[in-house]
Amino acid sequence: MALLDDLTWRYATKKYDPSKKVSDKDIRTILEAARLAPTSSGLQQYRILVITNQDIKDKMVPIAAGQQIVAEASHVLVFAAWDRYTEERIDEIYNKTTDQRGLPRGRFSSYTDKLKNLYLPQTEDENFVHTARQAYIGFSLAIAQAAELRIDSTPMEGFSNHELDELLHLRTEGLRSVLLLPIGYRDTDNDWLASMKKVRNDINDFVKFLD
Amino acid sequence: MALLDDLTWRYATKKYDPSKKVSDKDIRTILEAARLAPTSSGLQQYRILVITNQDIKDKMVPIAAGQQIVAEASHVLVFAAWDRYTEERIDEIYNKTTDQRGLPRGRFSSYTDKLKNLYLPQTEDENFVHTARQAYIGFSLAIAQAAELRIDSTPMEGFSNHELDELLHLRTEGLRSVLLLPIGYRDTDNDWLASMKKVRNDINDFVKFLD
Repeated sequence: MALLDDLTWRYATKKYDPSKKVSDKDIRTILEAARLAPTSSGLQQYRILVITNQDIKDKMVPIAAGQQIVAEASHVLVFAAWDRYTEERIDEIYNKTTDQRGLPRGRFSSYTDKLKNLYLPQTEDENFVHTARQAYIGFSLAIAQAAELRIDSTPMEGFSNHELDELLHLRTEGLRSVLLLPIGYRDTDNDWLASMKKVRNDINDFVKFLD
Repeated sequence: MALLDDLTWRYATKKYDPSKKVSDKDIRTILEAARLAPTSSGLQQYRILVITNQDIKDKMVPIAAGQQIVAEASHVLVFAAWDRYTEERIDEIYNKTTDQRGLPRGRFSSYTDKLKNLYLPQTEDENFVHTARQAYIGFSLAIAQAAELRIDSTPMEGFSNHELDELLHLRTEGLRSVLLLPIGYRDTDNDWLASMKKVRNDINDFVKFLD
């Protein structure tokens, strides 16, 4: 029940101790959990930016509705998804896959053709609805991995995506910001949420069994 | 590194042994991980249906593009998100939150007013873009919890949402299907993917550090 313990321990930290830094080793473990995360058709349709630069973190505060969390946390992870699908992006992953598995390139071409026929006629916004969803998987596993290490994090959607895309020049890299994850160590005495009971729907309100 | 071990162990299982059933205790542990998952503003904007009824599972096969996985897996979890935000749904959670924390109802009214002003003027489809994303968080943690228990699972988006909504009468409950997660035990000998190398982007292609 290790994961349940970790999920019970964690909460959306509202106040960090800016003097406490997450080690490089621990950050790499958190990123590895996200990297190993599954994604639709294995395409890994998003990237993670790891921000420790204080100037950038400070500039993110007004973009994140004035929340000081992004300036005070040790690291801020930015999850940014592909702005759209392209033939090249799909082929790149599948060429890597066949190469690493010792299979001929094109081994999965009937599958990648299906993906291209599905995604390429869609609008960019339709593509992004799908790519952005994938970012939530790595994001979730990064939160879980941080909790396993007893490192705090704050899941954040509430920021100006457009302004963050500009600050980090994401659009020129074919990416759009989706999620922020400040990471660090809680300042328990100054975090109003630290001592509050975690509230969830009862299992019977949350789950329905069709036996 | 327990989570990393679990994520390394898991893969998107393509063939289940239909004779092996996941215990009720283990299913409840997997559901508990999803229940404890964070969601935007703590609203838990989705529900999980747990399907073991063989007739329903069989009917899901054509809806899931003919994939036998949904019939052969021990359990199929259906993640279904709120079709839209309503004042009542937001208030219900926050009343539960204040009640359980021993705070007066309305303690978070400035925050819930902000949520209502944000979500209620949106279209239903805009609402659903957001609620559906939340389902991915619980989905991800359910996958991780299954892996911790060395139970296999198959993340699935490829099915007819509309037809599944009809089969399970989801729209009348204010829900729309988002994800399927068949769960069970792999049939290693008959699963082409079981022995294949897990392929991911290298960390340097996946992550960018802004120091």
